Amino acid sequence: MAETASYEPTGRTVPTRSRERASYDRELVHGILDEGYVCHLGFVRDGAPVVLPTLYGRIGERLYVHGSTGSRPLRMAGRADPGLPVCLTVTHVDGLVLARSAFHHSLNYRSVVVHGLAYQVTDPEERRSALDALVDQVVPGRSYDSRQANAKELAATSVIRLDLEEVSAKVRTGGPNDEPEDSALPHWTGVIPLARTYGTPLPADDLDPSVALPDYLAAL
Amino acid sequence: MAETASYEPTGRTVPTRSRERASYDRELVHGILDEGYVCHLGFVRDGAPVVLPTLYGRIGERLYVHGSTGSRPLRMAGRADPGLPVCLTVTHVDGLVLARSAFHHSLNYRSVVVHGLAYQVTDPEERRSALDALVDQVVPGRSYDSRQANAKELAATSVIRLDLEEVSAKVRTGGPNDEPEDSALPHWTGVIPLARTYGTPLPADDLDPSVALPDYLAAL
Repeated sequence: MAETASYEPTGRTVPTRSRERASYDRELVHGILDEGYVCHLGFVRDGAPVVLPTLYGRIGERLYVHGSTGSRPLRMAGRADPGLPVCLTVTHVDGLVLARSAFHHSLNYRSVVVHGLAYQVTDPEERRSALDALVDQVVPGRSYDSRQANAKELAATSVIRLDLEEVSAKVRTGGPNDEPEDSALPHWTGVIPLARTYGTPLPADDLDPSVALPDYLAAL
Repeated sequence: MAETASYEPTGRTVPTRSRERASYDRELVHGILDEGYVCHLGFVRDGAPVVLPTLYGRIGERLYVHGSTGSRPLRMAGRADPGLPVCLTVTHVDGLVLARSAFHHSLNYRSVVVHGLAYQVTDPEERRSALDALVDQVVPGRSYDSRQANAKELAATSVIRLDLEEVSAKVRTGGPNDEPEDSALPHWTGVIPLARTYGTPLPADDLDPSVALPDYLAAL
């Protein structure tokens, strides 16, 4: 199927405010998703919202989330017909925007919000690919350098899928937007950049010292 | 009112799995909340969940979220009686846990999940304190070094409150938990620590060069 360059906006992906920050660009959305691996997954339980942090993986236009067969959203998705309504959100914070006025304080960020129905994945091959994608989302290449799940582990794991259809990104960049009449106030103003950094890898206690740190980890 | 050392567990704050990672300790919860400033706020709209990243601030046992009077959750909280059911989640990722087996890959993390009703705050003094708390949550001390909101800005801003009553923390620390039979596999295993780091502050284009970077920002 030929893909358009953008997702189609819908009533719930068009924000009520700061519309100029919203985007439906497929490449932008994929880029934001691929830079992360922790999402916040929302679902409704007994009429109330629940938001849980969890890992995700992307394969093309499909997102996957996994967990124990006993975990609530996965169990609920398995029972839901036609699927469990979810909202999956990924956020990167890039900077603190410190304006002269408290009101104009903000963050530079990039976020993606996905609405849709989550389906339990039952096809064995799709389940395997999804689990590989989940591991590789955290560290690209890692799925090749670990033991794949065995039958017992697969039986204990649920995988759900959420298609990228109703999707929007929201991005803020740049400096503060103070009011012109505040420009002479004596407060420092600007942006404090933020970054995620990796520390020195800590080998497990029982790691055989002859196993060297592989290149794909040393490169982080 | 005297506070107990722990929040009371409820049906929805006791996880179905990894219960040993759950905690209701008030000090632990406060510490996790105070280390962050971006939460993922979930609410239900037309029967479906919505999860949005937003800033928060804490004053004692109350969390505050603010936004434009036009933004959806804030408008909904203003209309809801007795309040808008929300779930507010804060997550810190501390490390990538790379096991020999794909199945035992994990993250070291600390998260807090708060369930409850969000109320619109109308008391002018509480609104002011909440807005200060929101700014100080991002950079402690910043509310004193910025212009407070004026009447027009206050009129454009909604503040909602969520009390810390139905709350749990979840924490994973330590190394991988591989199966004993996997210990001879040739894969590097251990933890890659993660940290949030601040870059060099970028002054706004129109910052008067005589305004020095204040100590509380240089200390970040």
